[in-house]
Amino acid sequence: MNQIITFGEVLMRISPRGNKKFMQSNIVEFYFGGTELNVAISIANFGGNVKHISLVSDDFIGDTAVSYIRKFGVSTSSVVRSKRPLGVYFLEVGAVMRPSQISYNRSHSSFSEVLPAMVDWEKAIKKGNWMHWTGITPALTQGAYDTLKEGLILAKEKGLTVSADPTYRSGLWKYGKDPKETLVDLLHYSNIFIGGINEINEVLGTDYSYANEDFIKASKQLMETFPSIEKVVDKIRTALNASSHKIRARMWNGKEFRETNDLDITHIVDRIGTGDAFAAGLIYGLQHYDDYKAMLFACAACALKHTYEGDVNYSTVDDVVKIIEGNISGRFVR
Amino acid sequence: MNQIITFGEVLMRISPRGNKKFMQSNIVEFYFGGTELNVAISIANFGGNVKHISLVSDDFIGDTAVSYIRKFGVSTSSVVRSKRPLGVYFLEVGAVMRPSQISYNRSHSSFSEVLPAMVDWEKAIKKGNWMHWTGITPALTQGAYDTLKEGLILAKEKGLTVSADPTYRSGLWKYGKDPKETLVDLLHYSNIFIGGINEINEVLGTDYSYANEDFIKASKQLMETFPSIEKVVDKIRTALNASSHKIRARMWNGKEFRETNDLDITHIVDRIGTGDAFAAGLIYGLQHYDDYKAMLFACAACALKHTYEGDVNYSTVDDVVKIIEGNISGRFVR
Amino acid sequence: MNQIITFGEVLMRISPRGNKKFMQSNIVEFYFGGTELNVAISIANFGGNVKHISLVSDDFIGDTAVSYIRKFGVSTSSVVRSKRPLGVYFLEVGAVMRPSQISYNRSHSSFSEVLPAMVDWEKAIKKGNWMHWTGITPALTQGAYDTLKEGLILAKEKGLTVSADPTYRSGLWKYGKDPKETLVDLLHYSNIFIGGINEINEVLGTDYSYANEDFIKASKQLMETFPSIEKVVDKIRTALNASSHKIRARMWNGKEFRETNDLDITHIVDRIGTGDAFAAGLIYGLQHYDDYKAMLFACAACALKHTYEGDVNYSTVDDVVKIIEGNISGRFVR
Amino acid sequence: MNQIITFGEVLMRISPRGNKKFMQSNIVEFYFGGTELNVAISIANFGGNVKHISLVSDDFIGDTAVSYIRKFGVSTSSVVRSKRPLGVYFLEVGAVMRPSQISYNRSHSSFSEVLPAMVDWEKAIKKGNWMHWTGITPALTQGAYDTLKEGLILAKEKGLTVSADPTYRSGLWKYGKDPKETLVDLLHYSNIFIGGINEINEVLGTDYSYANEDFIKASKQLMETFPSIEKVVDKIRTALNASSHKIRARMWNGKEFRETNDLDITHIVDRIGTGDAFAAGLIYGLQHYDDYKAMLFACAACALKHTYEGDVNYSTVDDVVKIIEGNISGRFVR
Amino acid sequence: MNQIITFGEVLMRISPRGNKKFMQSNIVEFYFGGTELNVAISIANFGGNVKHISLVSDDFIGDTAVSYIRKFGVSTSSVVRSKRPLGVYFLEVGAVMRPSQISYNRSHSSFSEVLPAMVDWEKAIKKGNWMHWTGITPALTQGAYDTLKEGLILAKEKGLTVSADPTYRSGLWKYGKDPKETLVDLLHYSNIFIGGINEINEVLGTDYSYANEDFIKASKQLMETFPSIEKVVDKIRTALNASSHKIRARMWNGKEFRETNDLDITHIVDRIGTGDAFAAGLIYGLQHYDDYKAMLFACAACALKHTYEGDVNYSTVDDVVKIIEGNISGRFVR
Amino acid sequence: MNQIITFGEVLMRISPRGNKKFMQSNIVEFYFGGTELNVAISIANFGGNVKHISLVSDDFIGDTAVSYIRKFGVSTSSVVRSKRPLGVYFLEVGAVMRPSQISYNRSHSSFSEVLPAMVDWEKAIKKGNWMHWTGITPALTQGAYDTLKEGLILAKEKGLTVSADPTYRSGLWKYGKDPKETLVDLLHYSNIFIGGINEINEVLGTDYSYANEDFIKASKQLMETFPSIEKVVDKIRTALNASSHKIRARMWNGKEFRETNDLDITHIVDRIGTGDAFAAGLIYGLQHYDDYKAMLFACAACALKHTYEGDVNYSTVDDVVKIIEGNISGRFVR
Repeated sequence: MNQIITFGEVLMRISPRGNKKFMQSNIVEFYFGGTELNVAISIANFGGNVKHISLVSDDFIGDTAVSYIRKFGVSTSSVVRSKRPLGVYFLEVGAVMRPSQISYNRSHSSFSEVLPAMVDWEKAIKKGNWMHWTGITPALTQGAYDTLKEGLILAKEKGLTVSADPTYRSGLWKYGKDPKETLVDLLHYSNIFIGGINEINEVLGTDYSYANEDFIKASKQLMETFPSIEKVVDKIRTALNASSHKIRARMWNGKEFRETNDLDITHIVDRIGTGDAFAAGLIYGLQHYDDYKAMLFACAACALKHTYEGDVNYSTVDDVVKIIEGNISGRFVR
Repeated sequence: MNQIITFGEVLMRISPRGNKKFMQSNIVEFYFGGTELNVAISIANFGGNVKHISLVSDDFIGDTAVSYIRKFGVSTSSVVRSKRPLGVYFLEVGAVMRPSQISYNRSHSSFSEVLPAMVDWEKAIKKGNWMHWTGITPALTQGAYDTLKEGLILAKEKGLTVSADPTYRSGLWKYGKDPKETLVDLLHYSNIFIGGINEINEVLGTDYSYANEDFIKASKQLMETFPSIEKVVDKIRTALNASSHKIRARMWNGKEFRETNDLDITHIVDRIGTGDAFAAGLIYGLQHYDDYKAMLFACAACALKHTYEGDVNYSTVDDVVKIIEGNISGRFVR
Repeated sequence: MNQIITFGEVLMRISPRGNKKFMQSNIVEFYFGGTELNVAISIANFGGNVKHISLVSDDFIGDTAVSYIRKFGVSTSSVVRSKRPLGVYFLEVGAVMRPSQISYNRSHSSFSEVLPAMVDWEKAIKKGNWMHWTGITPALTQGAYDTLKEGLILAKEKGLTVSADPTYRSGLWKYGKDPKETLVDLLHYSNIFIGGINEINEVLGTDYSYANEDFIKASKQLMETFPSIEKVVDKIRTALNASSHKIRARMWNGKEFRETNDLDITHIVDRIGTGDAFAAGLIYGLQHYDDYKAMLFACAACALKHTYEGDVNYSTVDDVVKIIEGNISGRFVR
Repeated sequence: MNQIITFGEVLMRISPRGNKKFMQSNIVEFYFGGTELNVAISIANFGGNVKHISLVSDDFIGDTAVSYIRKFGVSTSSVVRSKRPLGVYFLEVGAVMRPSQISYNRSHSSFSEVLPAMVDWEKAIKKGNWMHWTGITPALTQGAYDTLKEGLILAKEKGLTVSADPTYRSGLWKYGKDPKETLVDLLHYSNIFIGGINEINEVLGTDYSYANEDFIKASKQLMETFPSIEKVVDKIRTALNASSHKIRARMWNGKEFRETNDLDITHIVDRIGTGDAFAAGLIYGLQHYDDYKAMLFACAACALKHTYEGDVNYSTVDDVVKIIEGNISGRFVR
Repeated sequence: MNQIITFGEVLMRISPRGNKKFMQSNIVEFYFGGTELNVAISIANFGGNVKHISLVSDDFIGDTAVSYIRKFGVSTSSVVRSKRPLGVYFLEVGAVMRPSQISYNRSHSSFSEVLPAMVDWEKAIKKGNWMHWTGITPALTQGAYDTLKEGLILAKEKGLTVSADPTYRSGLWKYGKDPKETLVDLLHYSNIFIGGINEINEVLGTDYSYANEDFIKASKQLMETFPSIEKVVDKIRTALNASSHKIRARMWNGKEFRETNDLDITHIVDRIGTGDAFAAGLIYGLQHYDDYKAMLFACAACALKHTYEGDVNYSTVDDVVKIIEGNISGRFVR
Repeated sequence: MNQIITFGEVLMRISPRGNKKFMQSNIVEFYFGGTELNVAISIANFGGNVKHISLVSDDFIGDTAVSYIRKFGVSTSSVVRSKRPLGVYFLEVGAVMRPSQISYNRSHSSFSEVLPAMVDWEKAIKKGNWMHWTGITPALTQGAYDTLKEGLILAKEKGLTVSADPTYRSGLWKYGKDPKETLVDLLHYSNIFIGGINEINEVLGTDYSYANEDFIKASKQLMETFPSIEKVVDKIRTALNASSHKIRARMWNGKEFRETNDLDITHIVDRIGTGDAFAAGLIYGLQHYDDYKAMLFACAACALKHTYEGDVNYSTVDDVVKIIEGNISGRFVR
């Protein structure tokens, strides 16, 4: 009864090495990712018991995706096979003032045909005590939204804690639903809100500024609107350029406001999945520590993810705790 | 007025190196291919003036595809950009008794949205004297069929020679058209039939055997049914296993039957696109030689393609002619 | 109660690409292997429920080994972590008349410290109905021998079928035990003997020839000596050179002698683990088919393994059955 | 009548990956470059119509060079094939305080045999409205100088705008000509001077300092000496070390002095060709914007080039304009 | 009589590319290293005459190690072949706040069986005028300690200068000896002490601080305790994180205290072997320059090593001298 | 006094991996080769004491070449550094009926400036007892011819055995000398003639056929013309195609005719340098065995070379002897 449940699309990520463009080299690397899967794997790397629910293609690419998820010890027992091809995203990694670029091939992917009838939620979450969702899934298709909602209703019923990362990505939401309405609907089943002023303004239709006072006010209004929400956690990224960022976090937990110091990421290796590493760190942290340490843990996990290639955060609890304890000099471990 | 025109989908081909599976290595290579494009590039490598008509994605993958086609000197002036992602195919290369495996992601690709209105055929073929089509394009979507047909009608009107490779691939044809009817329709605009007993039986609804006598009878019946057809050219492949094949060809040109000897391909490097290399060799050959030498040229081009990685036949006219002249010992060129 | 249990060392295999020597390139590839693990993974790829028992290092190399095993869905719940480094083998792949060369670094490996107390056999085999062992494990250390024996005793007690591949490798057996005595001891707990004249002569101290009549006589004598043995299955390899082999099998099952035809492997990709693929095929075959088809399945699985890089046989039941049904032309699967 | 014409050597650039030395790895990468070609390709990437004139080898390396140029849509119709091998340069990329090192093999290259009779300038520039030359070409051989001069005379006659990047590289100039005299001669045909105090002092024999006032004085004197020159544009690089630079520019256009702010390139990917990217940006900019924006465009293009591997600037007009507009945080483009 | 003698283990270093983990890619690179070998090769790269004494495996890995050492012109005439496998270390390279991680497989390596009888010291050092040792060798096995001591006794007798880098690594010293006692014993044969406050406190049992005054006091006490010691040279590293360090040095030579400025290494390529590069630079420097310049040379050599992949410092005397002279802008060398 | 001396150009060989063309991948591999160097390294790999005399470039490419030669233990003490760049050859490896293609960049290479004054032959051969030359060196430049001749005169004087491989390559000989005359001149200093009917007919101006009787007659006439020649050894290659060859040899030693059986090389890895491996095997064989076994050794060495990538034969005496003894099944060595 301690399983963490995630549900979302698995994407194959294909990119040239280093900072090359596809035009420069016909040798490329692939990983698998997807925002909820990234959270799942990161928590598994912390030693958590995790299950990821998804639809993947019924071909050797789908086999490879399943074996990839299994490799991290994440349960694939609720992964369904689909006749459609797996979603793909192509990535060109920028540097300095050159932004990274992503091109998606996902609109008719395996996951795009998900319907509530395809997921046996009763069975899928029967060992769960936590469920995590993001704003990507309901943005994909009506079926994805319906399926997620069914899962959330059951999760609430069964008493799972629900964390929500209601990211709004404007490039999605093509199937006719209003993003605000949809996210508002789903937030009613959620306990932990992982997001900042942009996300709060989006769902409340407000106009709060980035200042801490406004963050507190906004959080309070959010909690009034969604009484199930207990904590609002905001990750703040300051980007010098594509190669150097700073990360800190702040939180309103209904009682007090806490804020961390900036962590300085001077030589970014891979920026993808760093938000997911934050969410995973927060979930793990809230399950094992007090609120403030959970936030420190999330921040450190997020910072560490910037040093790994691919979507996945490979850091262990030990690795993260060392950062929290101030060991940020990167001294050799023999 | 000597341009060869091809029309068809451009696919990104992604495969691990050597005989690896995707599960074995996250480093893969990509090329671009597509049966008609393969024909186009092969003819360009023979020094031909070629234009390829297609729809590719309007992102950095589409840019890469265009630059790939341009690299061979094939004109991309009639390539249209589409909002959908480029089609992809994944390939695992077999060996000995292990077959190669292909998985497609093309059903909602850039090319899948082609409609007659998107191709300005008048402009596209105004320098053309030859047009080549295959059974893949009409098998994709109604729009692809309609667009191709419009092109063929105009090609006939303008007096271009039309070669047809009416391959029937059962994994396609999902949009509701009957393959036989469709291919029959398009063959009425064609002059050169590149295909064997299987293809003839498919379009005639007959049951001819592989014997030479039957091939001649079948060809005669085909020419009676389709009076525009002047030559029937059949490539015969004998496979020991995935690593060793033999290739020969036979032809009925309305007057005489000719047959080549087997070319022995004892150590196959890459089998993909070898049929396209045959078609390209035949088209080039018929434009420059007599029927028999054209068939020898096609066979040698096809055999050589087995020694190049990727979809493309890199051999030059010189390379092919040397094989025809019997230089098959692979002796060093310094 | 249908789990197949294997027990043995996990080795990291490191080799340059293609036919290179370490002296030629500082870029190398690694996989994990080990004869019993290879059997385990191959059966898992057939869809079997498999558990592998081993000791691996307690560092990032051990983590990588565990994730590698997990990737194939083989249970790692009985894998123990050791303070010693994981065993390694270095491989240079030969070609034609040049033999492949292997150099081991395993004598003080993680697995070398295994002792009976470290494996909870009761728990480990509680879902098992089959156990497989090879002559490599008892050849490593006294502790490995003792631990294996303890497992076999329990397996016999619990009614598991035991298959034995009593390969004798002269480079091992450094810890003082007599190979013959040891293998004889362990064969008393075994039901299926996977081996040929060499192995029989080794354990019986006889001098049988390779002729079929002698094979039958030898098998009979073996079964008399070890009444638990029900079947003797022999894989016969005919090597033209390092790049081209033929494989067939013969069997004495106490009642009849059966023999398969040769399968011709004309372009070997990787010869390592092909014996393990045979054993895995046989185990899977005996669980699902009659004796003769099991032998055909084993042979085809073995032949297919020669077409995959690494120690692992990636073929599925479908792949193998196609070979048995005579589809050995390696024709494309689209 | 809007083609931009470049003329110069095409070199094959060969380098190990990352910061490796040739002694460290026998796996290397190649691109093609050459200062004028780099300008040509960069302008083509901005959407310009460009032709590059050169001599390349008549072998598969020359074929590869031509296909490389064609890939960017640069016209190769005036590329001549030579019996000599293509020039090569070997590069070891430094980092921090370790400088990059280059070793050339170009003194008897394909291009080194260029003579005026080999280039049909009338035909080559008939669609041109701009021609660009650099100080590298006249430094190579008498034939290169003569051929370039013939082109410039015709360009002036036909009213093309001529931009000059009279870089002085002391390692060249082996064929007996005096650099100063030669550059002075060619500047008489030029309208845009891309260079700084060093270059001005070189051609004028003066001793101006780097201060802005001196730059203005120097520019004025230059324009007096060469009345055809209308603008002097100077790129100023401040290097912390091999991995971190700042770039800004200043210009005297005969009427006013303008200067840009520094762009900070904190994590250099590849420094080669950044001057060429500046020149290309300036040419494109002067054709589409006012002088100041042209200079901003050149600076941003130059800065962006530091983030691409190889000699070529892959940035588009859009990419550059975003930098000009202040989007230098490298935020993701999805 | 000008040969520099080193004695110590040769290790094979295996690591994934860039910042990858072994779990992320099965393609890895190898080099050879070992602290004393690194010193040897670095001095050979400065043009020194160097011999390295070691035991390596008698297999193709040992052959590769020998050829690697030979490649730098270091004499391998005193390298002995052992039946045991070569020691290996696995490395995952960190970045920013993620530390690099190393896992060793060396406790039963080729070198671990070294005994005094295996090294013919008379012959090995007969052309030597300098010998260098580090705290790693006596930490490995009793045999290694005994063999080293025998060498040092002879070196002292023959009048060689002996430099000592008495690094204390707590992960070693498993064979029962007390580190302090052992290092104290060996320091009696040494003339140059390369180490800082930590090392001095370790051997003296003192508690000096890092302040310069304490360093001077500590050095004086060290020289009193070990009258053979003439100079104490301390390298001071300030780490911002795993990607950015500063290096400076200070020295007490019995007469005066000297200190260098910090060298700023803003983008570290590979940190391994940088201490060895310092030692090599110091040895070379003391043989060719005065004390202060020797220290500058050591510092610059150390800084440059951070820009090369692998254990080896590839810089030449020229490269190092340029840094000393202040050329740290990394300006191109053509 | 047992050193084998070779003299000739060192070339950098650059080629794409596998059967790729340069147009297909910008990742390539390099080795170093050159016919006489290949002989030198192969003999060193047999344990011989070898010195190679050459001129290489005075840059990092030349450094890499020297380190490459040193790696095999071949003495580089007579390698001179030149201001010109090292010669390069580009290779595209064919397969089946596609021939490999080579393109040279050597006519103004480092070695091309060799003059007799640059080689101190007295010193270079003072430890020699054998010298080997080929028809490539005198074909390069007058200086190369003169320098070689000076060496051969001294070698004869000092009593070294001289082996000659008077290959005639028509693509060379550009400097005005008549090949026949030149080779005839040099053969007067030679004792072992490694060549077949083509080479004999070339130097004698005869017209012998390939039949054994003619070979004997031709050899006799050769020995009459060149009384210093004691043995004529001919390697006979039968090529099925670029991927499969057979090798045998025949010899006339003045007394008897001997011939070996064909060795079948069914899956060629790399054909370059196989003639050099034959020569090296013959030289080693004649120094250690009787004539017939020397010929067997040469044949087996040649056959083995086809299984190694690059120019170099990595086989040891052991490896070769196993082939002579009939172990050609490529059975594993563990």
